[in-house]
Amino acid sequence: MIKARVTVTLKNGVLDPQGKAIEGALGTLGFSGVGHVRQGKVFDLELNSADRAKAEADLKAMCEKLLANTVIENYAVEIA
Amino acid sequence: MIKARVTVTLKNGVLDPQGKAIEGALGTLGFSGVGHVRQGKVFDLELNSADRAKAEADLKAMCEKLLANTVIENYAVEIA
Repeated sequence: MIKARVTVTLKNGVLDPQGKAIEGALGTLGFSGVGHVRQGKVFDLELNSADRAKAEADLKAMCEKLLANTVIENYAVEIA
Repeated sequence: MIKARVTVTLKNGVLDPQGKAIEGALGTLGFSGVGHVRQGKVFDLELNSADRAKAEADLKAMCEKLLANTVIENYAVEIA
């Protein structure tokens, strides 16, 4: 079994109102010196396979098809 | 300036309907052999500070107060 983590983040230049809201909330809570905040998603997957190369190719295909919107998001695949 | 990444994931045993939905969708798309899927959140923050120890303490406080619901979520702080 292979465990993998996929991290999906917004591309640079794409507006992130959720990140902006967190930035504001952190300021209100008294955390000074917080610059940009960007929010993304993380997926932890288990694959019933022992072939790491195939797993990596599968994970990239999953990102392209479902997990990420590649118009506005980047993804990174890490195999544990 | 310090760049940090905070990863917030659901604790074991907490139901994750979003992860289940992704699991189902991946199966429908023809990806066989996908086991459990869990979804979490990731925050990329910039801190205007040079003190890594203080930054780490601040980030943990931010997680406790705002970024994570520690009843059901774990968090991990990584400083770049």
